[in-house]
Amino acid sequence: MTDLSNIENYSCPLPLQDYPKIVLGHGGGGKLSSELVEHLFLPAFRNEHLECLGDSTILNLGNRRLAFSTDSFVVRPLFFPGGNIGDLAVYGTVNDLAMSGAKPLYLSAGFIIEEGFSMESLTAIAASMAQAAAQAGVQIVTGDTKVVDKGHGDGCYINTSGIGVVPEGLSIAPDQARPGDKVIVSGTIGDHGMAIMSVREGLDFEAVIESDTAPLHGLVEAMLESSREIHVLRDPTRGGVASALNEIAEKSGVGIELDETQLPVKVPVQSACELLGLDPLFVANEGKLLAIVDEHDANRLVRAMQQHPQGRQACVIGTITEAHTTMVVAKTEIGGKRVVTMQIGEQLPRIC
Amino acid sequence: MTDLSNIENYSCPLPLQDYPKIVLGHGGGGKLSSELVEHLFLPAFRNEHLECLGDSTILNLGNRRLAFSTDSFVVRPLFFPGGNIGDLAVYGTVNDLAMSGAKPLYLSAGFIIEEGFSMESLTAIAASMAQAAAQAGVQIVTGDTKVVDKGHGDGCYINTSGIGVVPEGLSIAPDQARPGDKVIVSGTIGDHGMAIMSVREGLDFEAVIESDTAPLHGLVEAMLESSREIHVLRDPTRGGVASALNEIAEKSGVGIELDETQLPVKVPVQSACELLGLDPLFVANEGKLLAIVDEHDANRLVRAMQQHPQGRQACVIGTITEAHTTMVVAKTEIGGKRVVTMQIGEQLPRIC
Repeated sequence: MTDLSNIENYSCPLPLQDYPKIVLGHGGGGKLSSELVEHLFLPAFRNEHLECLGDSTILNLGNRRLAFSTDSFVVRPLFFPGGNIGDLAVYGTVNDLAMSGAKPLYLSAGFIIEEGFSMESLTAIAASMAQAAAQAGVQIVTGDTKVVDKGHGDGCYINTSGIGVVPEGLSIAPDQARPGDKVIVSGTIGDHGMAIMSVREGLDFEAVIESDTAPLHGLVEAMLESSREIHVLRDPTRGGVASALNEIAEKSGVGIELDETQLPVKVPVQSACELLGLDPLFVANEGKLLAIVDEHDANRLVRAMQQHPQGRQACVIGTITEAHTTMVVAKTEIGGKRVVTMQIGEQLPRIC
Repeated sequence: MTDLSNIENYSCPLPLQDYPKIVLGHGGGGKLSSELVEHLFLPAFRNEHLECLGDSTILNLGNRRLAFSTDSFVVRPLFFPGGNIGDLAVYGTVNDLAMSGAKPLYLSAGFIIEEGFSMESLTAIAASMAQAAAQAGVQIVTGDTKVVDKGHGDGCYINTSGIGVVPEGLSIAPDQARPGDKVIVSGTIGDHGMAIMSVREGLDFEAVIESDTAPLHGLVEAMLESSREIHVLRDPTRGGVASALNEIAEKSGVGIELDETQLPVKVPVQSACELLGLDPLFVANEGKLLAIVDEHDANRLVRAMQQHPQGRQACVIGTITEAHTTMVVAKTEIGGKRVVTMQIGEQLPRIC
């Protein structure tokens, strides 16, 4: 068992050299993505809204606080077990808005379609988006379509941007975690990433692994009815639970201790991960959330979540600590501890 | 001279058959684009906001009326005389918001970058976006970056979505044109499209043709100070002035009579158009607007526009009529008349 007392000022041993060119990892939601944002986009666009770097940004407009968020979707394949790029694009932005506690209201949809893409597939994607929007209680109110030459796209890329309204008195943000808080996950992890991987790699398991793509605003609403002591919400998409928790640890200036034995992982997902040498902690989810909540409200919240279809398997998986600031440390099944770093680049490219 | 008395119920002679696959024209801003929106996206997403089909949609939120708009940019080449994809992406959405009379405030930026794209180019694009945002008085408040495999993109695609606030009492929309209204253009037409074409085709003219890419919210503000009788505003981007006016004629259920002799076109643009067999009326602009205004305020508005850097060459180019409803008819230089139809597909692909 490693003594962790000396890792307080541990830093990533891999030098993040300057990249003269974009690599896939810059879109992977790991350390390279962060680097690109922090060293290229942030200095260029700097303003107080952008610096929050949450899933969505909060804007004061008139007598309302609005959440505003954007996400582009380049998932391959476009259709996968449990969903397609259309519902993924709707739920993705709905969830980004919900992670600030906002009620999602309106979406835009921007399509970049490759010449030769079948109208039938596009119709199916639009139908899924419509169904997902209805499911999430949002309207797609404005849109745009561009077509690029054959060979210069991948069938269809979709951007969705969204607007939601934040209830008064809430201040849920990645920098609000406090020592003592509990970390809750809303259900099994790794489903989306492994669903994509299994079709992409043509893996055949006994049970089909389905994406968990789903809207989370309803679950958040139920949670807020049960407690207002929710400090951080995050949907662990690209980069998985590990990246999301690392970002929270850094933004809040706290440590996070994770109990690996508590992590809910479906058996087929676990098997697929083992086969491919992947860690479920780093695999993308599209219908799960992490909540950092006051320790006194944690059990009540878990019970409330378990009453909701999106939170049946909710459980506490960790604690916020004063120790090992900005780091995530996992207690392993064999009783050891390991540092869960943010990945450099891409474990699974083009996952959303 | 053609007798136009019998074209009242004229309709497009080309049957718009069903396309089983997406063609470039579906992104061209012409009739195929409209078809795609009206027959595929609208039926799927139907709601009262989307049906306006303006450059932006208006949302009532609390005590504010917000304009919300989205646009994806896939222009080739990424850098062109007078601008690049970065400032184009900022001004494009700023202008879409301004066309509802809104004061643009916040933008999102979603990047889809091709693996191998140079960091230097990306930095230059981000810098242009920042400068354009400062110029337009907006903040880029939220963003997203995805990376696609080499060969599956074109360097960089950008989506921007934007939020603006609409001043009270305004109702500027494509269906507000009334017989008697005057049609104003804010300056020379065809500059952007011909700038792109000339670099793409390697054409060498005596004078370099520069894109007119510029923010129009300031001009709109100046116009609103001079008159509140502005009924429609539209920036004639893809599909040019012809497509924009055809859309207005259809949405407002009016006819539009255009005086071709009044259209301001720069000499090099005119020459390039003649060389390539293009009509400037169909060529994209990225820093010009069309205004449909009450006839009594038209001259006052033109004078106000001419005081503004973006409106120096503003002039009246036509009149809204009760005749030839939903059609645009141009009085030609030789005294004849011709119907200016909306193009089926794409005159210049990938122009924005």
